[in-house]
Amino acid sequence: MTEQMGAALRIALAYHEAWTGKDLDRAMSYVAGDVVCDAPAGRIEGAAAYREFMAPFVQMLLGATVIAAFGDERTAVVVYDTATVAVASGPAAESVTVEDGKITYSRFIFDRVPFQQARERASGSV
Amino acid sequence: MTEQMGAALRIALAYHEAWTGKDLDRAMSYVAGDVVCDAPAGRIEGAAAYREFMAPFVQMLLGATVIAAFGDERTAVVVYDTATVAVASGPAAESVTVEDGKITYSRFIFDRVPFQQARERASGSV
Repeated sequence: MTEQMGAALRIALAYHEAWTGKDLDRAMSYVAGDVVCDAPAGRIEGAAAYREFMAPFVQMLLGATVIAAFGDERTAVVVYDTATVAVASGPAAESVTVEDGKITYSRFIFDRVPFQQARERASGSV
Repeated sequence: MTEQMGAALRIALAYHEAWTGKDLDRAMSYVAGDVVCDAPAGRIEGAAAYREFMAPFVQMLLGATVIAAFGDERTAVVVYDTATVAVASGPAAESVTVEDGKITYSRFIFDRVPFQQARERASGSV
């Protein structure tokens, strides 16, 4: 399959495999220094901020399953489900632009509600 | 582009075009009677329940823009942004399975938080 895969999908899947394998250093090697990510809570700019955004999630990750992955030479979409200690099923979609082998833009979509609920439970407020 | 498109992507885009054009009757013509949709608030089963789920959103829709759309013969992903009176930008991803020209399964991903906040504002609770 790999040989038929567009360049953007190859990078998106390599990135996905790295972070879901908890190898954030390797994951970040696929992310451009000036990456822009539009996430549910707002825009994240730059690799350092992006890593900060991902790190706590990677730390609590129990597992991830790819639901769908498609792409061409420049853009790719990976849809997956995640399991964390906090949230048994937290599906997400990442729609990325890849330039020169690095993710330069990501539209990151997931529902924040179950994660908020888990935080509220953890803090004893509900 | 259409001729090179997999069957599932053709149906997913026809469905998308119909509901974002507020033609829910036409949209539902691409949805199987026994459709199953895993949405943020839980599983929706059957075309009638699915239509009930979509109708209020379609009613308040101001516009939608496709961010990415990919697929093959059996599965497709459409990532898009929506604008509604309540929420200026509400991006979503739908990862669908298509059988015999109808969507039989949909994994629907979007962030419920901005919609909840809009409801709270509307009800005057914040």
